[in-house]
Amino acid sequence: MKNKVRVIPLGGLGEIGKNMMAIETEEDLIVIDAGLMFPEEEMLGIDLVIPDVSYLLEKADKLRGIIITHGHEDHTGALPYVLRQINVPVYGTRLTQGLVTVKLKEHKLADNAQLNVIQPGDQLAIGSLYVEFFRVNHSIPDSVGVAVRTPAGTIVHSGDFKFDHTPVDNKLTDFAKLAQLGSQGVLLLLSDSTYVENLGYTPSEQAVSTALDRIMGEAPGRVIVATFASLISRIQQVIDAATKHDRKVFVVGRSMVNNVQMAIELGYLSPPPGILRRVDELGKFPPDQVAIVTTGSQGEPTSVLARMANRDHRHIRILPEDTIVISATPIPGNEELVNRTVDNLFKQGATVLYSRIAGVHVHGHGSQEELKMMLNLVKPRFFAPIHGEYRHLVQHAKLAQSVGIPAENTFVLENGSVLELSANTAKVVGKVQAGCVYVDGLGVGDIGQVVLRDRQALAQEGIVVVIVAVDKQTGKLVSRPDIVSRGFVFMRESEELIEQAKDVVAAALNHKEDHLAEWGFVSSKVKDALSKFLYEQTKRRPMVLPVAVEV
Amino acid sequence: MKNKVRVIPLGGLGEIGKNMMAIETEEDLIVIDAGLMFPEEEMLGIDLVIPDVSYLLEKADKLRGIIITHGHEDHTGALPYVLRQINVPVYGTRLTQGLVTVKLKEHKLADNAQLNVIQPGDQLAIGSLYVEFFRVNHSIPDSVGVAVRTPAGTIVHSGDFKFDHTPVDNKLTDFAKLAQLGSQGVLLLLSDSTYVENLGYTPSEQAVSTALDRIMGEAPGRVIVATFASLISRIQQVIDAATKHDRKVFVVGRSMVNNVQMAIELGYLSPPPGILRRVDELGKFPPDQVAIVTTGSQGEPTSVLARMANRDHRHIRILPEDTIVISATPIPGNEELVNRTVDNLFKQGATVLYSRIAGVHVHGHGSQEELKMMLNLVKPRFFAPIHGEYRHLVQHAKLAQSVGIPAENTFVLENGSVLELSANTAKVVGKVQAGCVYVDGLGVGDIGQVVLRDRQALAQEGIVVVIVAVDKQTGKLVSRPDIVSRGFVFMRESEELIEQAKDVVAAALNHKEDHLAEWGFVSSKVKDALSKFLYEQTKRRPMVLPVAVEV
Repeated sequence: MKNKVRVIPLGGLGEIGKNMMAIETEEDLIVIDAGLMFPEEEMLGIDLVIPDVSYLLEKADKLRGIIITHGHEDHTGALPYVLRQINVPVYGTRLTQGLVTVKLKEHKLADNAQLNVIQPGDQLAIGSLYVEFFRVNHSIPDSVGVAVRTPAGTIVHSGDFKFDHTPVDNKLTDFAKLAQLGSQGVLLLLSDSTYVENLGYTPSEQAVSTALDRIMGEAPGRVIVATFASLISRIQQVIDAATKHDRKVFVVGRSMVNNVQMAIELGYLSPPPGILRRVDELGKFPPDQVAIVTTGSQGEPTSVLARMANRDHRHIRILPEDTIVISATPIPGNEELVNRTVDNLFKQGATVLYSRIAGVHVHGHGSQEELKMMLNLVKPRFFAPIHGEYRHLVQHAKLAQSVGIPAENTFVLENGSVLELSANTAKVVGKVQAGCVYVDGLGVGDIGQVVLRDRQALAQEGIVVVIVAVDKQTGKLVSRPDIVSRGFVFMRESEELIEQAKDVVAAALNHKEDHLAEWGFVSSKVKDALSKFLYEQTKRRPMVLPVAVEV
Repeated sequence: MKNKVRVIPLGGLGEIGKNMMAIETEEDLIVIDAGLMFPEEEMLGIDLVIPDVSYLLEKADKLRGIIITHGHEDHTGALPYVLRQINVPVYGTRLTQGLVTVKLKEHKLADNAQLNVIQPGDQLAIGSLYVEFFRVNHSIPDSVGVAVRTPAGTIVHSGDFKFDHTPVDNKLTDFAKLAQLGSQGVLLLLSDSTYVENLGYTPSEQAVSTALDRIMGEAPGRVIVATFASLISRIQQVIDAATKHDRKVFVVGRSMVNNVQMAIELGYLSPPPGILRRVDELGKFPPDQVAIVTTGSQGEPTSVLARMANRDHRHIRILPEDTIVISATPIPGNEELVNRTVDNLFKQGATVLYSRIAGVHVHGHGSQEELKMMLNLVKPRFFAPIHGEYRHLVQHAKLAQSVGIPAENTFVLENGSVLELSANTAKVVGKVQAGCVYVDGLGVGDIGQVVLRDRQALAQEGIVVVIVAVDKQTGKLVSRPDIVSRGFVFMRESEELIEQAKDVVAAALNHKEDHLAEWGFVSSKVKDALSKFLYEQTKRRPMVLPVAVEV
């Protein structure tokens, strides 16, 4: 591997390289991002999904550090799990490290973590690699992309980005740095593909400010804005619009309160004095002097907004003159939850504004024209789209070809693909272990396909447990089999079916040549007979679980 | 109720009146549509959802018939279940009745059904009510709306509609009839709210024809179009475009084949001779002379498209020069399945075109300008939006107010709401039983909240079954408790946990004052102790099911 570099997307659920990318040379390995994903629909009962870091553990002796591009959970959330296994230095901007610290404290890992705060524009050596951070715009302040100088050439990683010419914090993407890198020569660009399907440009955050300004001005009563707790700049926009229209701002919801506090301490939120108020002061102000900012933009059932929608919140009841603004788009899979929340708010007579019908949210990722601009600023020799599902990467690769990158120089990778580059060549040389690890409660990685398949089966048609008592000495049935079910039929109204089912089990057991001690054989016989019977009777296929009790 | 009429939305899952509306006078009751809905995410294992028809059964003696506005399943699919309980005449256009017949045959109900074929423009008496059908455009030919003359006045029901000036079958919405009804005076308009969130006009089906024409002309290899089996006009568009570019058309997939056959027999599809070919002839034609039309536009795992995407179809393998067109939008909840299918097709090197990136689908429902046009043609005194979720109805009511219907004359109903009208008045006078009945296998309505809650619990963290053998005489424990689990932890790797759990159960039972025959008490004691232990150890809450065996 002398004078070569390998690039390996290591994590993402469906998306490639979204949660973790590795850059490896002969001597050093650095990781960009360590995020988590929320489980897909069929991953029943799973709380979180994190990248499989087997490859990092294997190469632990050359792992020099983890760079975090910005403070969103899909880029930071796996850190507690990774650092617990392998405690390496972490590099990130101040707000990013602030959010990371909040997270590590929850896991009691903050004391031992080696967090290094960097500034956009900083250059530093990590091992023998020379790393440079450049500012990009995204839906959270203090986001960066990364340029890594390797023996084979410079690799540019865009981070999550859009080009916003009027961002909330007035800090622009570092176009000059991108152009400078481009003119010095870039070996490989890794660029965000999330919104490659969108034509044109992503609107500026300014559009949201304009909408919030109008809403705060016109709303006859309270304005309640729901958004992501990590959308720090959106919270600033709410504060700005509320201030302009003489409304006090009430921050409600634990994660929102924690983030706001941290962002104020670090200087990323600047509310004018007296604007932020405690919830217990809510009653002191008339409705048209109130703005509430809270969580629940995804319809999460335990969030403040969902509880208000269900008239289930301790302090806040929805009033007919309230205006509720859902300043986010539903993450795929959350649409139904969000829709239900909106419907419930409407049923209480409130006015509800959401992104489909009002310009109250913009995306944080660049559209096609921005992606082309990135390509033309950086002018890479090779191009590998990242941060997107496979179809997005294919389209981003085509987009790159449309601005002149030869097809043979574009690489659509999968998680685990190893792209090896020298100064003049690039090719996929193999595949390493990469994928997903499920977190369920305290268990990390202990839920595999067997348990998930069982949950899926249980979810579909429930379970029927057959209890058979056999004599320890003779192996004979000592009483009529018993049957208990859950999630299959309503037991109390299905007595006849259950009695018949017991007959079927008894008949299946009634062969004197079978010594019931050969339980494996007898169990599958009971299972087959009962499954067949139940399917004939109900056209349902519950899980059948025979249990023998030896007495 | 003399000289009055009641309008009652009777069915829809979230959507109001989508699947069934009742119109009731003193003497007669007619029903408009009898459709099914697909279950929402949390309705685990449920196959279908149909309207609760308790109210119709209660009023069976005055129920005169069911009018079906068009042949989509969400308007026809509950007919087999309704007719089995109450066999009344069914009225619908020819294609609609063709599709209904296919469905009733599957349920062995076609012979006894009283199907009356009507033409758009027909007027007929149903009981004392005078009913008139008018053509509307939708994504299936032969769709109608209905005008019902009642003693209180005329009620107009739009059906599912859009105003397409260049529909595939060249048959326009009957604007003249709508205008005529409007000038004669309409008491109440019930109008489709599905796409009230969309500004402007819904594009014509012509847009899809143009896109398909271009695709069939330019594609280097086969063109594979996936759409709904009931989208008869889309299938005609595929045939037209294929014919123009000298491609043979292969219809693949059982439901698609059945519908195409029926539609040809009834004259709703007119393929030029020799264009439609059997799948076993596929090998005889070069790829650039082939078009395939099939199901799977929703990513359904057993559909032809999903099986092709997974290299699992018996006859058809995806080739890199194939162009796949997904001519549909994902129904909410199906996005992930569709995305996965698209990704898998891309991974096989094919070109995939879908509605987000190519104009290969248009909606079948009118946008805001069409909804306003409907209101201004019909000029109703009262307005009740239907066919949409609550938020859509609220917005449609506001839209109506924006074109001059007074707020006090617009009614946002819920399923079961009874809107009673006289010639001059309208008000909600009560609520009747209405809602959803779950179909699971052969069971209709036997799955209730208890069973569903059990399935949800099982899905989340699985089940732990505790088997306790007790002496029938003494009520004492006769052996160490046994534990079996599914969907909780991987049993083979959790032996220690399970052994400790048995100890916990044994300890909970080890109270000589408890006679174990008092099973209810002991059972909940075991359950509590074990649940607590397992939560402490794993932070998971499996369902705990204690079972006693008396021996």
